[in-house]
Amino acid sequence: MVVFEGFELLDVFGPLEMFGMLRDRVRIVMLADRAGQAASSGGPAVVVDHTFADAPALDVLIVPGGMGTRREVDNPSFIAAVRQLTQRTPHVASVCTGSAVLAKTGLLDGHQATTNKRAYQWATSQGPNVRWVRQARWVEDGKYFTSSGVSAGIDMSLALIERLVGKEAALQVAHGAEYEWNEDPDHDPFAKANGLVD
Amino acid sequence: MVVFEGFELLDVFGPLEMFGMLRDRVRIVMLADRAGQAASSGGPAVVVDHTFADAPALDVLIVPGGMGTRREVDNPSFIAAVRQLTQRTPHVASVCTGSAVLAKTGLLDGHQATTNKRAYQWATSQGPNVRWVRQARWVEDGKYFTSSGVSAGIDMSLALIERLVGKEAALQVAHGAEYEWNEDPDHDPFAKANGLVD
Repeated sequence: MVVFEGFELLDVFGPLEMFGMLRDRVRIVMLADRAGQAASSGGPAVVVDHTFADAPALDVLIVPGGMGTRREVDNPSFIAAVRQLTQRTPHVASVCTGSAVLAKTGLLDGHQATTNKRAYQWATSQGPNVRWVRQARWVEDGKYFTSSGVSAGIDMSLALIERLVGKEAALQVAHGAEYEWNEDPDHDPFAKANGLVD
Repeated sequence: MVVFEGFELLDVFGPLEMFGMLRDRVRIVMLADRAGQAASSGGPAVVVDHTFADAPALDVLIVPGGMGTRREVDNPSFIAAVRQLTQRTPHVASVCTGSAVLAKTGLLDGHQATTNKRAYQWATSQGPNVRWVRQARWVEDGKYFTSSGVSAGIDMSLALIERLVGKEAALQVAHGAEYEWNEDPDHDPFAKANGLVD
């Protein structure tokens, strides 16, 4: 999980709750450009496990959103680090405006993706060659899973667990978290609520 | 927000995402028995802002669940600290097995409350004089809001925001998080799924 100053709490910890429920099958590492800690936009700070430069090999890379993405899309060393991690990781996901960061690497060009529905114009402007999907809870395209805003990362993560471990495991995780999984990637009432579709 | 070694990630950060969306109206503080950091059961660690002993005056106290509650219910100094914070705070909430901790303080005696539906027998055994509710997404009783497992803390937090700030604010927060709020405290399919009701 990538973190930075001003990450959105649930973008990070919704997905990590779901993956963490796989217990010993998963090891979670928090990655940032600097060692130490990273404060969320809400206030609470998390401990950084590895810098980008010393990140271990990853099976899944997740890029969250949050107000900090507005700064990081214009930070060439941050974008270069995420680009390198994305290239070497077999499954790459984003939550909310995390897709703006992924888009800025150029690696989403030609791929379908979605993003937060309230920050849609800004996020999509970071990747004019991405095939943005206006109405989707999440979008899968090859190695990329991109979700809509904040809580959508939970539904997307369960779909990614289904892809990696199987449907039964995803259902067990949702049950363990007493979470009613929105299993339909096309169910997205927030596209309409934000005037992106009629 | 109370934290301890082995807290459950979403029990903490689901509610804090919702309260954090109130922006400048809220200041979030992470409380623990020791300064430094506290590691979740999933791995990621959070920074502790204040020890229990130097906690500021609070409007809302939230106690999360997680495997660590199994240890803390038998830790007299932890229970005494939570008891003291609960007595001096006007609104007190728990998520998942956090209600076992609250029950152990004795302050829930005679009150209605709910808890995680998979750990129901263990959690309820920590407070035999609590009026436990088997089927509920969350339960409100006076100053106490107790939720069912993990993701239920999000729905309960929105109800608490409704109580404290108003319905419009709660709906705006849910919308901002692209979250379909389960507004019905009695909607709890997990009670049946775990054999607690027919």
